[in-house]
Amino acid sequence: MIRWNEVSQQTQQALLTRPAVNASEAVETSVLEIIDEVKTCGDQALLKYAQLFDKRTNARLRTPMQEIADSEKQLTSKLKAAIDQAYSNIKAFHHAQLPQDIKLQTTTGVECELKYQAIDAVGLYVPGGSAPLPSSVLMQGVCAQLCGAKTIVLATPVNGDNAINPAILYAAKLCGISIIVESGGAGAIAAMALGTESVPKVNKVFGPGNSYVTMAKQILSQTQTGFAIDMPAGPSEVLVIADERANPNFIAADLLSQAEHGADSQVILLTNSAQIIEQTKAAIDKQLQNLSRRSIAAAALQNSALILVESVEQAFEVSAQYGPEHLILQLADAAPFMSLVKNAGSVFVGDYTPESAGDYASGTNHVLPTYGYSKVYSSLNLLDFYRTYTVQSITPQGLRNLSSAILPLANAEGLDAHANAVKVRLETIQND
Amino acid sequence: MIRWNEVSQQTQQALLTRPAVNASEAVETSVLEIIDEVKTCGDQALLKYAQLFDKRTNARLRTPMQEIADSEKQLTSKLKAAIDQAYSNIKAFHHAQLPQDIKLQTTTGVECELKYQAIDAVGLYVPGGSAPLPSSVLMQGVCAQLCGAKTIVLATPVNGDNAINPAILYAAKLCGISIIVESGGAGAIAAMALGTESVPKVNKVFGPGNSYVTMAKQILSQTQTGFAIDMPAGPSEVLVIADERANPNFIAADLLSQAEHGADSQVILLTNSAQIIEQTKAAIDKQLQNLSRRSIAAAALQNSALILVESVEQAFEVSAQYGPEHLILQLADAAPFMSLVKNAGSVFVGDYTPESAGDYASGTNHVLPTYGYSKVYSSLNLLDFYRTYTVQSITPQGLRNLSSAILPLANAEGLDAHANAVKVRLETIQND
Repeated sequence: MIRWNEVSQQTQQALLTRPAVNASEAVETSVLEIIDEVKTCGDQALLKYAQLFDKRTNARLRTPMQEIADSEKQLTSKLKAAIDQAYSNIKAFHHAQLPQDIKLQTTTGVECELKYQAIDAVGLYVPGGSAPLPSSVLMQGVCAQLCGAKTIVLATPVNGDNAINPAILYAAKLCGISIIVESGGAGAIAAMALGTESVPKVNKVFGPGNSYVTMAKQILSQTQTGFAIDMPAGPSEVLVIADERANPNFIAADLLSQAEHGADSQVILLTNSAQIIEQTKAAIDKQLQNLSRRSIAAAALQNSALILVESVEQAFEVSAQYGPEHLILQLADAAPFMSLVKNAGSVFVGDYTPESAGDYASGTNHVLPTYGYSKVYSSLNLLDFYRTYTVQSITPQGLRNLSSAILPLANAEGLDAHANAVKVRLETIQND
Repeated sequence: MIRWNEVSQQTQQALLTRPAVNASEAVETSVLEIIDEVKTCGDQALLKYAQLFDKRTNARLRTPMQEIADSEKQLTSKLKAAIDQAYSNIKAFHHAQLPQDIKLQTTTGVECELKYQAIDAVGLYVPGGSAPLPSSVLMQGVCAQLCGAKTIVLATPVNGDNAINPAILYAAKLCGISIIVESGGAGAIAAMALGTESVPKVNKVFGPGNSYVTMAKQILSQTQTGFAIDMPAGPSEVLVIADERANPNFIAADLLSQAEHGADSQVILLTNSAQIIEQTKAAIDKQLQNLSRRSIAAAALQNSALILVESVEQAFEVSAQYGPEHLILQLADAAPFMSLVKNAGSVFVGDYTPESAGDYASGTNHVLPTYGYSKVYSSLNLLDFYRTYTVQSITPQGLRNLSSAILPLANAEGLDAHANAVKVRLETIQND
């Protein structure tokens, strides 16, 4: 048990240090090669990677429309209903985020507008890995659908001779996605950024992925003009703040649900009760036994810490310093503490609000800034699928009104032609 | 004169191709060295660069508060009034952008919120170069002030034995900025991203700059956890769409006011009138003679094109393909065409709306995506100074309601512990 106030500042910092995720040069080299090959060979490159990396036997890149349409027939009614329910909640929460244009007159004769334009073409990446992730389709797909993007491309790897998972297809169908590319990794990202015969070129790619995917997103967003990505990626993490009356079983379950994501996940408990720490430890040991991914979860627990703080207030200070992706508050009454919440991706308030509720179905987005980026990046939201631009309309009188600001400033900045663009116009306006 | 419909697709593409801005490896190497040195030597490194690059004789890094307070005494009343007027309009337009939190119940017992948090510490960069840029202070400073950022750092280079420009100081004073760092280039960016003895560390750096500044922003946003930048940078550009009754003098003045920014600026005219092209050419030649920056403007005109299109509608198609930073519409009636506006940073509507109005005083922001990034990036707006996060609060009954979505999805994704976090809670709820 670590007592926050009794360890050195150095140890405190070490406790909040994330596992390093320095991408190797080897990753960068192969991603650069992949990008080049996709640029040159298009679909052929993607087919080659599918065979090589995913052991794919089916030489197709696009899921036929009929398979998407028929996907629900292959789902149990329970799973179909679950996807429907999650979709409905996620849609309700993101629908509330639909932006409104702003228009105002800043000076007589000077009208300014801020307008929203949906990004034309978006790419959604859904990793394959150990399991299909229909929830990841919903989190990205609902936004793409609500903004009305003209082109929505979903890319996901398919393994061996499997068919693409029907839960993925059904989630995509709900979101109105018809372009599904059966390709994964850096190749899929490059295809969406550059375009190939089968993959439309998009302006922005969203979604998580492994180190190759992350590297490809990073490189392409730096080198491909007009192309952007959602946010920097990093391992998943949770920080739980619990008081002395919290339920150790709930805490343990929340820590483990984060730990099972990957061996590089980080979980932290901050509590003002030594007893809670002891009981949580015991509960973790017990619950761990029954998990199918217990070896992953156990590895993640190595990067993790159960920390005794002096007070709940101190816990919020430490949390703000860490900047957790997920922040769970198991407090008798969280309300008085909500103003202390800082630098969190998503917050789960109260004993009955586990992280898995937000991961799937409460309605909030589960694509969140992690690895300390919640100090400056937003959790994924509908506005990430829009861009804003401004419009100004000025009457002759309006320009005259503004000229007393424009001309001295242009002069001060030594920009004659800026002043001249006003002067040639003023000359044509009859003086009142 | 280029007739759009009569040139090959290849030529069309070439016409819309921006001058290359590949940063040299030499720039990257020195920026990496500078970042390293700032990390190691802090203020000492900044002082060294000021001496080396800005020929600075004054060995101070921070502008004394008294100088900021007294700045207006050194301004003409005209310039002070101009800054006041610009500040007021910019503030009005950005105040209208203040965000509102969103709260809704997605399911009985499940409350979700989207909340806005101002970014804690922001850095504003104002380039030095050929002239002081008080307008650049206002565009960034008003946003930092309105969001209520706790720490606002302004960095700008000061040349030789000059005092820092009072117009810069006064603009900063209006925006409530008290931390002014007299340092420029990659060193200033590194200092804000990493922190030094005199420069507080910030979470996000805004503002334009030369290739060293751009490279430093890019590298640090990729390598420094929790650090972000506003948007990718590129040379400035304008595209004018004019009909047959437009005033060639106005068009020429607008093209030149963009061209004088730098030799790498790009200016494009699209019109359905051959006569307008001829007359604009003549007007450019005439106006150019009187500009103090005529050699810069003349160089920029080399990258530029006056293009004859078939119709105003076609002009909007070409513009959307290009994605201009500034789009000027000199049309008899622009209203019917506004729905065709796409991929523009800021739009200037009507004969009496020159770009310089938006550069200084209409109220819109002049920090805009350029170089084709207006297909996916926003013009700078108040939300760039915030991050969003989500909060969910679920009652026991709410969790029971959600469990029919969470449990099948967790099972489908093979994530036992995610399901378990719900199950351990449901077990404690008495069945009705």
